[in-house]
Formats: sequence, C-alpha cells, structure tokens
Amino acid sequence: MNRYVMNQPGVYGYYPMLPREAVQPLTFVLVHGSWANASFWNGVAAELRRQGHTVYAPEYPGHGSDPNTNVTHAMISRAVADFIIAHNLHDIILVGHSFGGSVIQKVAELVPDRIKRLVFMDGFVVADGQSLADQLPPPVQEAFTQLREMSTDDTIMLPFSLFRETFVNLADHALASQLYNEIRPEPAKPLFEKLDLKTFFRLQIPRSYLYLTEDNVLPQGEGYGWHPHMSSRLGVFRLIKSHGDHMTFFRTQPALLAQRLYEASRD
Amino acid sequence: MNRYVMNQPGVYGYYPMLPREAVQPLTFVLVHGSWANASFWNGVAAELRRQGHTVYAPEYPGHGSDPNTNVTHAMISRAVADFIIAHNLHDIILVGHSFGGSVIQKVAELVPDRIKRLVFMDGFVVADGQSLADQLPPPVQEAFTQLREMSTDDTIMLPFSLFRETFVNLADHALASQLYNEIRPEPAKPLFEKLDLKTFFRLQIPRSYLYLTEDNVLPQGEGYGWHPHMSSRLGVFRLIKSHGDHMTFFRTQPALLAQRLYEASRD
Amino acid sequence: MNRYVMNQPGVYGYYPMLPREAVQPLTFVLVHGSWANASFWNGVAAELRRQGHTVYAPEYPGHGSDPNTNVTHAMISRAVADFIIAHNLHDIILVGHSFGGSVIQKVAELVPDRIKRLVFMDGFVVADGQSLADQLPPPVQEAFTQLREMSTDDTIMLPFSLFRETFVNLADHALASQLYNEIRPEPAKPLFEKLDLKTFFRLQIPRSYLYLTEDNVLPQGEGYGWHPHMSSRLGVFRLIKSHGDHMTFFRTQPALLAQRLYEASRD
Repeated sequence: MNRYVMNQPGVYGYYPMLPREAVQPLTFVLVHGSWANASFWNGVAAELRRQGHTVYAPEYPGHGSDPNTNVTHAMISRAVADFIIAHNLHDIILVGHSFGGSVIQKVAELVPDRIKRLVFMDGFVVADGQSLADQLPPPVQEAFTQLREMSTDDTIMLPFSLFRETFVNLADHALASQLYNEIRPEPAKPLFEKLDLKTFFRLQIPRSYLYLTEDNVLPQGEGYGWHPHMSSRLGVFRLIKSHGDHMTFFRTQPALLAQRLYEASRD
Repeated sequence: MNRYVMNQPGVYGYYPMLPREAVQPLTFVLVHGSWANASFWNGVAAELRRQGHTVYAPEYPGHGSDPNTNVTHAMISRAVADFIIAHNLHDIILVGHSFGGSVIQKVAELVPDRIKRLVFMDGFVVADGQSLADQLPPPVQEAFTQLREMSTDDTIMLPFSLFRETFVNLADHALASQLYNEIRPEPAKPLFEKLDLKTFFRLQIPRSYLYLTEDNVLPQGEGYGWHPHMSSRLGVFRLIKSHGDHMTFFRTQPALLAQRLYEASRD
Repeated sequence: MNRYVMNQPGVYGYYPMLPREAVQPLTFVLVHGSWANASFWNGVAAELRRQGHTVYAPEYPGHGSDPNTNVTHAMISRAVADFIIAHNLHDIILVGHSFGGSVIQKVAELVPDRIKRLVFMDGFVVADGQSLADQLPPPVQEAFTQLREMSTDDTIMLPFSLFRETFVNLADHALASQLYNEIRPEPAKPLFEKLDLKTFFRLQIPRSYLYLTEDNVLPQGEGYGWHPHMSSRLGVFRLIKSHGDHMTFFRTQPALLAQRLYEASRD
C-alpha cells in the first residue's frame, strides 16, 4: 500500500526510501578506502542491488587477499581502471570513500570516457601536487609518520583508541571492536606520495560530494576537512549530506547510505 | 487524539508540527529571489495560511508577468515597500529568500516601523557598499559576468547543469527539469549594483536566519556562504536550521519549511 | 515487542533509544554552566537514571542557593573536585555544559585519576592562558563588559531578547519566558579570569565533544564557536552531534540529549 519503502529503525530514525518506480538503474563501481577491503561495501552494495542497480566493488593491490604491502598509488588506480576495462563497463557511477576519493581522481584520468559521474563519499579530493598526508594537520602527519616508522613492512596500523574515537564514533564498543578486528595494517606509501592531478582538474565529468556529518576522521573546518574544504576543489558539484561517521553506518545503516548514494548519483 | 499534526513522509522523515493551539497568528510578507517569481511561495504560503497566518507574496519589477528586464535593485525594494504601504500592513514578518534577502535589507530601510521581524531564508545579507556578486568567489563572478554578456537583454540564464547540481540538488531529475522549465532569465543589473546599507545596519529590528543545510548555491564556509558567513553580519539573530537545498523543498516539503519559518518568526 | 524505547515526539521527530540490554552502566557527574544551577540537569539526569546510570549534578559556589557572587573560577572547580572526593567517586564521566566546560578542564587537573572520560556538551574548551571572554568576538566582549559594569554586585544579567534569540532559539515564547524567569545574574569574575591550563593540555584522559547543531550562543565558524573551533583544541576526541540549541532541549527533549550523552560517554 505504502509506496515508500522504509528501512529499519536506527539511531537516526526512519528514512523513507524513494518509491521504487522512480529509481533510475545505474552501474556503480565502489572504491573503498584505507584500513578496509572490498567487503567494506557489502551492505551498501546489497541495498543498491535491491533497488535495481548493478554494483561492482573491485579489490585493489595491497588490500583484501593481496599480502603485498609494497604498493603505489599508481598501481592501485591502474588496477581499478583495468577492472573497469576488463568488465567493459561504461556510464559508470564511480564512487570513492576516504582514500578511495584520491583513487577515483586518478582513475578518472585513465578512463574518463567510461564515467558518468564521480561521487566522493567523505573521500579525499587531493589538490594537484599534494599527497593525502598533506591534507592532515601537522601533528597528525607526524603521528602517522611515527606509526609508519614503527612498522617493519612500511604500513600504518591505527591504535584502537584512535580508530574507535574518530572512525567509528557512532558505534557501540562491541561493534567498534568487531570492526577494528577486521582491519589490517595499511600500506603507507600511497598516503605519502605526491600526486600529479593536473589532468583531473581539467576533466568535465559531473561530480557529487556525499558528506557524512558526524565524520571526525579529519578536523572539520578551519582549513581542513571533507566538506567544504576538499569538496570545494571540485568546482561545481552536487552536495548530499547524511548522518553518519566515517565507517559505522556502512555496517548499521546501509539502506540509508545507499539511498543517499543514489541521490548523489542519479541524473 | 494526537495534538501534533504530522506532515507527509518525505526524504527526511516525519516532522511533527506544533500543536495548533500554540500558534501565534502572524502576518507574513514573502519576498522571492532570482530565477523565481511570486508563485515560488505557493506551497509554503498555503501551509502558513492553514496554520492561521496571513500571507502576502508580492511580485516585483522584472519578474512574473513584468517583461521589463531593465530594472534596478532600488525599483525592486521600492515596489515591495509600496506593496506593504498600499495594503496598510503593520507588524509584518518580512521574509527574504536568496536575492530577496538583499531586498528586505533595503525594504527595512524604507518602512522600518511596519516590520516586526526580518527573516533571511538562505537570503543574502549584503555588507554595506557591496553587491550580491561580491558575495561570490571570483571564478563564479566571472562565470556570471560571461553569462550576462552572452545575453541580448542584460539577463543571466542559468545552464541546466548548474541549476540542477546547485539549486535543486535534492530533487530527482524529473522535478529538476520541471522547475528549470519554469524559470526565465534573471535581470542582471540588481545582482551587480553596489548597495548603500548604512541605514540597514543601524536598524534595531529583530532578525532571524533560517539556514537550509543542503543549500550549495554558494560555497559553504571558508569565507563564503549563507551561514555563518553572511548570517553573522546580522549581529544578534535567531538561528533556525532545516534540511533542504536552495529550492526543492519549497515544492516537495512545504509543511516542513512553513514550520521552520514559523519557528524563525514567532515572538 | 519492540526492543527500542522511543522518546516523545518533538520538533525533531522520533529518536529510537538503544536497546536496554546494550546499556553500559556509567557514573555521571554533570556540571552546569552560567545562568543556570544544578536543576538544569533534572530532565537529562532522570533519563540517564532510567537507563540505569548513576548521576550526580553538584551545585557550585555563586549558584543555586549560594547568594555569594564574589566567587572565582578556582573556587568553583575546587568545589566540584571536593564533591567528587567527598562522594568517593571513581571512573566518572565528567560532563561540562557551556561555562561548565572550562570547569571540567580545571577539575580534570585536580582529580585526573578519578575521571574515565570528559564530555564537553557545547562546553567551553579554553586555551591555556585565556579566559572565557577571550572566546567571544570583541563586540560581544564589550557588551558583556558593559553589562558587568551596570551591575552593583559584579554580575552579568542577560537581557531577555539576547537570551531568547541565542540561548533558547528553538523554544516558543512561553517556554523562553519561563526559562528566563528562572535565571539569576551570573557572577562575572570567573568569565574574565585568565586560566592556566598547561596541566590540562598534558592530560591523556579520553574526551568527547557533544555538539548541539542549532546552538547560536557563540558565532559558529570563522574563528569562533563550539565545534570545530574549540573542540579541535581537544586533539583526538569523539564527536557526537544532536539537534538542539543551548538550553531548550534540556527541558523539552531530555531523552534525546541523554541518549546522545550516553553515546558520547560509553567505552
């Protein structure tokens, strides 16, 4: 009877879904971030498929089942571009979460004609000539450099307290622990490489920024942060906001995030 | 039974209305912005009237049925002030949306004793001696100047993609197209005139800022934007926030916006 | 049947509570702010107790039944620390609202080993060597200084209009008047004292910031405000957001604020 499909009640209440008949079928390629692997998208991908979309979530070097930690940013973006080519995908919505934002910047340079829209979901939009680390305040850069130097394989492992307070601040302790136990040390090099993004900033591909308003991984405002600091580098972009921290709602509110992602992605 | 009046389910869920018995009847004068005409307020005005308020939405020169595009900011504010005088209105809540914010600044100078409160609804609060265009980042100013020079009658027409991404980012494509088809080129001159607002900034009329949190027409933060950048020019003001982009919810969620507008307007 | 406990419908809708079985029992010490006394917490404390927590809301000098207005910041923080010691409290969640934020900064210096976590709830996080007044823009500082000089007992009384517009902007007029009638002039000295906070900024106690998004007591952004301006002084902290202005929801939405406070406080 009700043409609205409701998702489950959660901390932030009921979010009616769009009427099913209004959904425009899209092809999504979802690119995860650091301290994650392709399974990061499982919940959101299932919801998108339920809405009628086609969804790919490629793994990339140094993550998932690949034990190699000596990877570069270029290897990662090349792998995603190759995945898109190998699957002969066109008119894709290319989504980057967190570090994945910088990946889709470079993938867009490699296969611009196959991309319908770029969606940054609390994703890094790195300025030309900068690294991801350059987006962090100096004390955080130093802390990451120290964590890097403590490793034997040039990786960075987040301490639990940092992960719990800033990546999954909306989770309860049990879920935070579970999510923490799933992560492995992140290859450090791609986070510190300076990226040539001149081509990216000349591209005319439509782009959206999906901002999760409780995300506190980066300082918000005062010269740092996802939105408006990095989002504004996109020039004209579509802004969508959702409740959510950096990682929790991907597990607990996938229908909400899928709906917001659709709103960021439709024509 | 339920003393709360619920509005329709929407993308952002249920918003209980205030109990009817608590409503303080007010007289609203609603001033629309650029790329709009008085019908912009139809939905919100109907909801306000349903709550028991008296509502006026005057048209002003260069808009609606007036084909003249050679209008000035002074002609517009004079027309709104004359409307208020002609209808012998007093104790009004004077609301300005977008460009209409700068109009109510000048109307307040003309008929200060008739105004109970000023409400800026994602409205421009222009600093003394500046123009609306001065509130835009230089690249956007240049784009607007180019659009102006492309016209034969000193107007600016928004390209669809810009309108869709930044004015109605929360709409689906069908609604975005419908709303775009309703707009006509905007007379350019009032957007570039420098405004003397010394008198406005000496007025003691109570004022509110109603900020729509997904509005991305102006860059948000970092020296630009509706709130807190322009709102803070009001000195002491009442802040109300609502979900919404620049134009969509006026069509899809009028009960929500009317409720927030009432909260911004009551004593 | 429903394992979610709903709070009452309000302006911002339904907020499902966490399942009761998931609640981790905590010991809260709630420190109120200026123009308030310990009864400020009555609603939130009742909700927290209903969830199974132990709650203390100590009164401090110059407030509540203490008629003395010649108090210092040190007297206030000493009194709260003495309360904690006298009740032999350990592993406490020490919460500071508004001015109370600066109090818990100093209490943390006095009894660091008894504190499990600090929670700033739109609370001041004063930089070392500064005063609370230093967090205000110069025109507001001047206004407060004038109000101070107008008093005969070195207090500051808020004019109703300022209180109504910036402390309880979400309230209706009747509630705003009621809340205003409950306040008494605030001892001025603690607001202007420079605070030595070197020890505080060396402490490693976990900390959270609970930001009420409609709070307009301080300008938001552009070098001022609760979050991210003062919150960022905490270094690594857990961010939780809630709808709410500075004072209204403590009276009208205590279950919502208690839930958010729990999310800010749990392990």
